[in-house]
Amino acid sequence: MNAASSIDHFVAIVPAGGAGTRLWPLSRANRPKFLHDLTGSGRTLLQATWDRLSPLGGQDGLIVVTGQSHVDAVRAQLPGLAAESLLAEPSPRDSMAAIGLAAAVALRRDPDAIIGSFAADHVIGDLQGFTATVQQATEVAKTGLIVTIGIDPTHASTGFGYIQPGDPLSVRKAPDAMAVTAFVEKPDAATAAQYVDEGYLWNAGMFVASARVLLEQLALHQPMLAGGLSRIAEAITTAPAPEAAQVLEETWPGLTRIAIDHAIAEPVAAAGGMAVVPGSFGWDDVGDWHSLGTILPGQESELQVVGDGPVLAECGSGVVVPASGRLVAVLGLDDVVVVDTDDVVLVTTRGHAQQVKTLVDRLKAEGRTELL
Amino acid sequence: MNAASSIDHFVAIVPAGGAGTRLWPLSRANRPKFLHDLTGSGRTLLQATWDRLSPLGGQDGLIVVTGQSHVDAVRAQLPGLAAESLLAEPSPRDSMAAIGLAAAVALRRDPDAIIGSFAADHVIGDLQGFTATVQQATEVAKTGLIVTIGIDPTHASTGFGYIQPGDPLSVRKAPDAMAVTAFVEKPDAATAAQYVDEGYLWNAGMFVASARVLLEQLALHQPMLAGGLSRIAEAITTAPAPEAAQVLEETWPGLTRIAIDHAIAEPVAAAGGMAVVPGSFGWDDVGDWHSLGTILPGQESELQVVGDGPVLAECGSGVVVPASGRLVAVLGLDDVVVVDTDDVVLVTTRGHAQQVKTLVDRLKAEGRTELL
Repeated sequence: MNAASSIDHFVAIVPAGGAGTRLWPLSRANRPKFLHDLTGSGRTLLQATWDRLSPLGGQDGLIVVTGQSHVDAVRAQLPGLAAESLLAEPSPRDSMAAIGLAAAVALRRDPDAIIGSFAADHVIGDLQGFTATVQQATEVAKTGLIVTIGIDPTHASTGFGYIQPGDPLSVRKAPDAMAVTAFVEKPDAATAAQYVDEGYLWNAGMFVASARVLLEQLALHQPMLAGGLSRIAEAITTAPAPEAAQVLEETWPGLTRIAIDHAIAEPVAAAGGMAVVPGSFGWDDVGDWHSLGTILPGQESELQVVGDGPVLAECGSGVVVPASGRLVAVLGLDDVVVVDTDDVVLVTTRGHAQQVKTLVDRLKAEGRTELL
Repeated sequence: MNAASSIDHFVAIVPAGGAGTRLWPLSRANRPKFLHDLTGSGRTLLQATWDRLSPLGGQDGLIVVTGQSHVDAVRAQLPGLAAESLLAEPSPRDSMAAIGLAAAVALRRDPDAIIGSFAADHVIGDLQGFTATVQQATEVAKTGLIVTIGIDPTHASTGFGYIQPGDPLSVRKAPDAMAVTAFVEKPDAATAAQYVDEGYLWNAGMFVASARVLLEQLALHQPMLAGGLSRIAEAITTAPAPEAAQVLEETWPGLTRIAIDHAIAEPVAAAGGMAVVPGSFGWDDVGDWHSLGTILPGQESELQVVGDGPVLAECGSGVVVPASGRLVAVLGLDDVVVVDTDDVVLVTTRGHAQQVKTLVDRLKAEGRTELL
C-alpha cells in the first residue's frame, strides 16, 4: 500500500458479479471471469482490482459485493478484505442494488464517505494514470456532483455505450472535469465513428460520488429501492449478525432490479448533476477472447499464451489458455483461440469471439448445466 | 466368417508395427495407430484387418507379427487369434524380417501355404472387391510368381511409391494380372501426374506369394536373413517354448534390417518374377489427419467426428477426435483438426497434417518421451 496516494474518506466499491459468458469455458457460472488470472500476471482480475483500489482508501476502504455462492472464493482470494466489507447478495438484483447497498453501508461508517465503484473484472494498464483520474473525480464529487470516469476511446468500438461530454467544469485539482450532456447506448459502426470524432468517451461503468449525494439521488429517483437498501444497511451496521441477515433475506428479494446507469446516471445527467473525468490508462473490460489478445503481453502476430501451462506451437497466431495442465499443441493456424480446461476444450478464432455465447446458449438449452 | 470366400492354403500375415507419427497425439509409441478405431466403426484398424482377412484363410490362417510391447494389446483386441499365430519381435527389424518369419512358420505348417501380407493399419472400403483381388493374386501366386496388389490411383499422390505394370499375364481366374516392370519411389507432383496418365498403380505394400517361393527368393537375395529366419521358425514350430524363445532372442538381433520392397520386390521384379493385380476397393493408409477426413463418413464440407465423444460445433469443417471424453467445442473454423486426448490436445488444419511430425520431433528433441 502506498499511503501517499490515499484519498481522504474514499471507499472503493467492487461489485463482483457477471458470468463473463463470452470467456467460456474458462469463465463459468460457479467460477466467473473475475476469479481468473486472465492476463497471466499471477493475480486474478479481482486481486488486481484489489491491488489497484485498496491503496486509495483508508483502513477498510474497500467493499466487495458478490453473490453468496462466490463469498468463499472472494474471501480466499482477498485475505486482506475485512469480514464486514464483504457483502453477499442473496440473489442478483442488478448493479444499483449492489452499489447502493455498499454506499449505504459506507455512509453509515463515515458521513463524509466518497465512494468509487469499479467492476471486479476489468484490466487497467497504467496504475498511476488511473489513480490520478480517480483523484480528480473525487475532487469533483466533493462539489456534490456525481462523477463518471469516461475512457478516451482507442477506436470506434460498437461494444460500449458512450458518454457525451458537455462544458468543462472549473473544479480545483480536477482540470479535466466536464459536465455530462448525455449517456448514449452502444452505437452502430458509423455512429461510433462519429462519436469518437466528436469527443465522446466510453462508458466503463465507473462512478465516483459522495455516498450521501448518491443515496439522496437514489431516494429521489428510486425511493422504494433507496428505502429497502437503507433498512438493510442500518441492520448490517448496527444489529447483531443473525438479525441483520434476517433483514437482508426479507428485504432483498423485493428490491427493484435496475442498473445504476438507468437509476442514477441518466436521470441525474438530464438534470445537470453528472460530471465526467476522461481517463487514458489502458482500460479493457476483457469482454471476449479477441479483446484478451489485445492486452496480453507479446505480439498479436504470434501465439499469446495465458499462464504458464504447457504449449507447443509451430507457426500461427492467436490466444491459447492451457488451463488444464495438458499439453496444447498448435500447428499453423492464424488468430486461433484454444481454451483448454478440465472438462471442455474450446477451439475458435478471434474473429468468432463474440459468438462463443451461442455455444453457451446451446448447452443451456440442452440442460448441460455442469458445463456452464 | 464366410466360408464361401475362403482360399485354399491361404495364410494372411499382418505385420502390426509403425508408430503412425503423423496421427499423433492419438497414435503413440505405446499405443500406435493400428490399435485405434480411427474410422468410428467400433473396430480398431487391427480388428478391421482381422475381420477382413480371417475369413480368407482356414483354421489359424492369420499370423500377426508385432513388437513385444504390443503383444498384450493385440491379444486383447483379437481374442480369436491363436496363441501360436501371434509372433513377437524382440526389436524392430523392418518388414522383411517380420513377414519372412511369419512366412517361414506358415511354410512349416503347410508346405503349400500361400501367404498374403497386409498392414494392420490400412482402411479398405469395398470388402468384396478386396477379396476378389486377393483371390486373383492367389491364383497368380500358385504359378510361382510373387504378386503385389497395386491400387488404382484416385489422384496423382506424391505420398506413395508406384508400380509400373508390364504386359498382361494369362493366368486362369486372374484376368487382371500383369507383369511388373518396376517399382518406383515416391514421385514429385509432375511425375506423379505422368505416372497416373501412364497407368502406374500405387504401391500399397500388399504381397501375395507361395511361402516356399518367397523364402527361396529370400535365400537367393538375402541368404543370411533367410538362414536366421529359418532357424527361428524351426524352433518356434518344433522346439519347447523356452528353447524357441532362446533361439529367437539370440538370432533376431543379428538379422538384416531391410524392407520387403528392397529385399524381394525390386530384385524379383528386375528378374521378371513379379506380377501385379490392380485393385479398386477404396484403400487408404490413413497416413495423416488430412487423409482421415477423406474416408470418414459424412461430408468433408462439415465437421467430421471420430467416435462418439462429445462435440459441440457451430459452423466450420474438419476432423475432430474427442478421445478424452471432455467436450470439444468448435466454432467457425474450416478444415480444422482437433485431437483431444488425456494428456495432449492438438489443434491444426488438414493442410498442415503432414507437419504434425515436426511437433513430435520437437518433443523427442526435448526428451518429453511421455508424450510420444
